[in-house]
Amino acid sequence: MAVLRTRIQNPQSLARPLVRRLRPYAYGEQPKIAGLIKLNTNENPYPPSPRVLRALKAAVDGRLRLYPNPTAQALREKLGRLHGAAAAAIIVGNGSDELLALAVRAFVEPATAGGRAGGGGNVVQYFTPSYSLYPVLADIHGATKNPVHLKPDFGLPAPGELKRDGRWRSDAALTLVTTPNAPSGRGYTTSELEGFCRAQRGVVVLDEAYANFADEDAMRLAMTFPHVIVARTFSKAFSLCFQRVGYFVGHPSLIAVLHKIRDSYNVNGLGQIAAAATLADLDYYRANIKKIIQTRQWLTRELAGMGFQTFPSRTNFILTQPPRFTAEEWLGKLRKKKILVRWFGSPELKNYLRITIGTAAEAAILAKAARKILGQ
Amino acid sequence: MAVLRTRIQNPQSLARPLVRRLRPYAYGEQPKIAGLIKLNTNENPYPPSPRVLRALKAAVDGRLRLYPNPTAQALREKLGRLHGAAAAAIIVGNGSDELLALAVRAFVEPATAGGRAGGGGNVVQYFTPSYSLYPVLADIHGATKNPVHLKPDFGLPAPGELKRDGRWRSDAALTLVTTPNAPSGRGYTTSELEGFCRAQRGVVVLDEAYANFADEDAMRLAMTFPHVIVARTFSKAFSLCFQRVGYFVGHPSLIAVLHKIRDSYNVNGLGQIAAAATLADLDYYRANIKKIIQTRQWLTRELAGMGFQTFPSRTNFILTQPPRFTAEEWLGKLRKKKILVRWFGSPELKNYLRITIGTAAEAAILAKAARKILGQ
Repeated sequence: MAVLRTRIQNPQSLARPLVRRLRPYAYGEQPKIAGLIKLNTNENPYPPSPRVLRALKAAVDGRLRLYPNPTAQALREKLGRLHGAAAAAIIVGNGSDELLALAVRAFVEPATAGGRAGGGGNVVQYFTPSYSLYPVLADIHGATKNPVHLKPDFGLPAPGELKRDGRWRSDAALTLVTTPNAPSGRGYTTSELEGFCRAQRGVVVLDEAYANFADEDAMRLAMTFPHVIVARTFSKAFSLCFQRVGYFVGHPSLIAVLHKIRDSYNVNGLGQIAAAATLADLDYYRANIKKIIQTRQWLTRELAGMGFQTFPSRTNFILTQPPRFTAEEWLGKLRKKKILVRWFGSPELKNYLRITIGTAAEAAILAKAARKILGQ
Repeated sequence: MAVLRTRIQNPQSLARPLVRRLRPYAYGEQPKIAGLIKLNTNENPYPPSPRVLRALKAAVDGRLRLYPNPTAQALREKLGRLHGAAAAAIIVGNGSDELLALAVRAFVEPATAGGRAGGGGNVVQYFTPSYSLYPVLADIHGATKNPVHLKPDFGLPAPGELKRDGRWRSDAALTLVTTPNAPSGRGYTTSELEGFCRAQRGVVVLDEAYANFADEDAMRLAMTFPHVIVARTFSKAFSLCFQRVGYFVGHPSLIAVLHKIRDSYNVNGLGQIAAAATLADLDYYRANIKKIIQTRQWLTRELAGMGFQTFPSRTNFILTQPPRFTAEEWLGKLRKKKILVRWFGSPELKNYLRITIGTAAEAAILAKAARKILGQ
């Protein structure tokens, strides 16, 4: 690219120092390798329901020239009926990632701005390990991060333990809790989450991306506490990653704040249609979820027989400590056999692999490959 | 919604003071009234090309369960070939609105944060009238707005005039220029834009949402100046509002900064596919653009015959001062005849209607309705 001589020698100098320093979020690979078994980004192995595909095809017409509904009104009304909430208690986002970013911008003062009464006004608080996007969002905003360790078994510390810990802040402007936890798969009971929420004075987002794979969810806490938001997505249980639809449920006053700062037309029209059609065919998805849970149980047992130590999962993935070789070596060995899983290099996770639960056939191929790697 | 008694009496108090004070962007109505002629939000009256619709229908399958390409790689490569730029010089957004918001967050320090060397580091600068989203984005970010009047005929002041004006800041961190201008429809030459860009020390975004309806565009300035970005969208000329696809072209170092702070999967998969298919069928769109320009010329003449004073337009809409009744009265009278146009209540625009150019048939209905309102 031809660039004129101008006074600006380094265009990056035009960016804010905060932004220049950022390291971007590392997402799982999306390689295009024929025959690859992709168990690295927690996608659902089953396609959207035939009804959803039909609804989408029927909507691919002249309407694409028009702006989509700016508030995803029809979808919000359907979601309201599903959860027993008002449409005003719901905001739909371009994936729940967009909404998590909005929450940081709405509820947390940038640390450089001097904070506000209460002290925790600059703080984005979250457990480690959990969704690796949270610190990225805090950094982008210039917020103060307060990462606090989960228990060694990835359990949620009780409010009393958090108080004794000293690091935990009940005045944090925003606390993000992945429940069930990723990347461990560990589930939390609604009653322990309730005690936790009761102890917080700022906003709490219960990020339930994987809740449909668990025994219970905490949606009722979003209906009970004015400072609690539950985050959901159509990506995981509803096989719709491609179309970017997630949502928050919370007190209408809190949700109204988020509506004020989102992009006007933030959710694409075909995504809105696909999500609405999904809600009309939940039995199809419940059957898929059941299959995924069965495969999860089968794979966990198979791997246990080979010496893998797997944490009990309430999600569509497992975190497992492999035998004989390091987790990083397993990553490479499986990849050579065209099976892609996820490995996080951080100190608390470097001994584990995170494996998305695929179809029963994919699980069988994985088990066979693992046996071969172990020479069994 | 049942709300437990908690210490939090007013959930809005959990939002940042900055956000509590915000007034949201007012978008054009999207009413669902049968038979309504919708000329209020500058949508294209023609549907996407049959090839685009076919490509989309063919893509509605099991792939929807997967994440879309995180960087819109294939689309960026095609756009690069179209414009003679590297893929690294391009970022695709969830509509160009998302990218405009990213630019504010990447290049402008919030005013509350104390600024940086050079003084203009907090400033989002733009002309009035132009795209009404700019001040909203500045307010959301806590930036200092510097709105500067266009000339009375909506022309761009020359650098010398801006210097004399005293309000204009050549050190503004970000300057946003709608070119051709909305809502006036006025076009600017690349050579006047070049002189303008040369005088700026911060980032300049030339927002070319409507450039495909004009005689020339300023894309080459994004290839020439390291601090100039050109914004484009698939919404207007390419009939794809529904799927939210826009893009920026600029120096790869500047574009890299924006990639760092966008959501990981910010552009939905079917939007990427539709946009890529659009680029393979540009002749279809060029023919539509030609029809829209012809209709614009016809409607301008017809309205002139009734006493409407219309600014010369280089876009798919016109700004016109209606005779006899106030513009606000015209808005109501046309709406009664099921024709929806746009009226902005601000002092500099309150005497005008903005009318999107529809099909020739819609323009004829509008002209007939106007004649009836005038008793002709």
